[in-house]
Amino acid sequence: MKKQPTIVTGRIKLRRFAPDYCAGLDKKKTRARTDARGRRIGDLQPLLYANAHHAVLLIFQGMDASGKDGAIRTVLQHVNPAGVQTANFKVPSEEEKAHDFLWRIHHAVPRAGSIGVFNRSHYEAVLAERVLGLVPRQTWRRRYGEIVDFERMLVANGVLILKFHLHLSRREQAKRFKERLADPKKNWKFSHADLATRQRWPDYIDAYEDMLNATSHPAARWHIVPADRNWYRDHVVAGIVVKALDALKLKWPKPAKNLAKVRIGK
Amino acid sequence: MKKQPTIVTGRIKLRRFAPDYCAGLDKKKTRARTDARGRRIGDLQPLLYANAHHAVLLIFQGMDASGKDGAIRTVLQHVNPAGVQTANFKVPSEEEKAHDFLWRIHHAVPRAGSIGVFNRSHYEAVLAERVLGLVPRQTWRRRYGEIVDFERMLVANGVLILKFHLHLSRREQAKRFKERLADPKKNWKFSHADLATRQRWPDYIDAYEDMLNATSHPAARWHIVPADRNWYRDHVVAGIVVKALDALKLKWPKPAKNLAKVRIGK
Repeated sequence: MKKQPTIVTGRIKLRRFAPDYCAGLDKKKTRARTDARGRRIGDLQPLLYANAHHAVLLIFQGMDASGKDGAIRTVLQHVNPAGVQTANFKVPSEEEKAHDFLWRIHHAVPRAGSIGVFNRSHYEAVLAERVLGLVPRQTWRRRYGEIVDFERMLVANGVLILKFHLHLSRREQAKRFKERLADPKKNWKFSHADLATRQRWPDYIDAYEDMLNATSHPAARWHIVPADRNWYRDHVVAGIVVKALDALKLKWPKPAKNLAKVRIGK
Repeated sequence: MKKQPTIVTGRIKLRRFAPDYCAGLDKKKTRARTDARGRRIGDLQPLLYANAHHAVLLIFQGMDASGKDGAIRTVLQHVNPAGVQTANFKVPSEEEKAHDFLWRIHHAVPRAGSIGVFNRSHYEAVLAERVLGLVPRQTWRRRYGEIVDFERMLVANGVLILKFHLHLSRREQAKRFKERLADPKKNWKFSHADLATRQRWPDYIDAYEDMLNATSHPAARWHIVPADRNWYRDHVVAGIVVKALDALKLKWPKPAKNLAKVRIGK
């Protein structure tokens, strides 16, 4: 099996990326390794918090049922929830619409020392808003540059940004929608609006492809994560997070001064 | 061993509550039971999210080293971090000081369907701010009523509030401070300011006692959690959370209409 790249460093065609790619790995063994990666993330989070120099921002995009919730749950399952801030970006409120598209995003950026998760993000402003025709072409095209500038500023100010496009096939989406309809624990998730989105599949693929090419800049690259197999998706995401955290080379901070002289009493 | 109450329903004297109380339980067995309670909370969170009718707000107060962080970590260790929003209330910023004391608190109230955690809270406005003399007596006394009114409003609007005072002995605090000083993984936590607070111990106990008596109202009772033993502290908190969540009798929501007619295609 030819190795499929994940990181977007040059111009890409999305259809060249197989959503069911799994690098020939074994499901059971891989799950165990993913769990070990999750534990490593759980171990590194207190160091991130103690240092409070960096924030980590994980951005998840992908079609309905691509597994954004599932990936977040698995990858962060061993992390203290107190160290994680998750933001779900839904349809903007009237107040949010009355501001620029980055206003509500900026507010949700994680503080130093914590892990932030964006379940959907500012990228909806060049995806759904483009496909649904909510903004003119010149607006969503201008936003690419505005997003890159915004992310560069965040990175320069200590935010480590990791961006994941969960790449799902249309066929696998159909399968998952049918499962949702059949399962009483899942069918509350089903919305008729999801079908309308599904019908615009080719338009969304175009929008995703343009977005990936326009906004995968050196300070914050996009990762295209094959998403047809949950276990491989989680493995890839966990690996990228571990590698990025390890690269920070976090150590326990130096203690406050004069600790040797401190007398506590009884 | 005489059973020590936890919930505050009448006027209490804090010195009558033993910080090292553990109901005669065995540490190892209790830890396993606490873990089971944690798993139950993890299982109930998706139901809370799916229904999105209620929010749950866990408020933690207690002296330095009483184990607020530890309790939060243990009790929520099996919960998807995406379903939890934690707020740490430190010394107010200039912007926050320019507003009423509940302004920053209100903003951090969890949204329907999620679990919010306050690590310290609006109660600092009648604790530290009182002891340090930052506000006149008439102000902090007035705040008791304002807090009760505010919490009643939240409860009436679907927020389940659970308030925990982690009750630590001065002796155990000394032991924990010494451990922090000795452990390079913990001594970054030590602040000389903690010693200043420790020296005002009796004043803080007075402030806590008055607060517990003035703000344990039927809509949101205080719980006094013995905190000298971490394992018993976590067990008590987890038990209260499980009981409160069970009482909501959450069920999977009814599916959207006309699901039987939905055709997904391939």
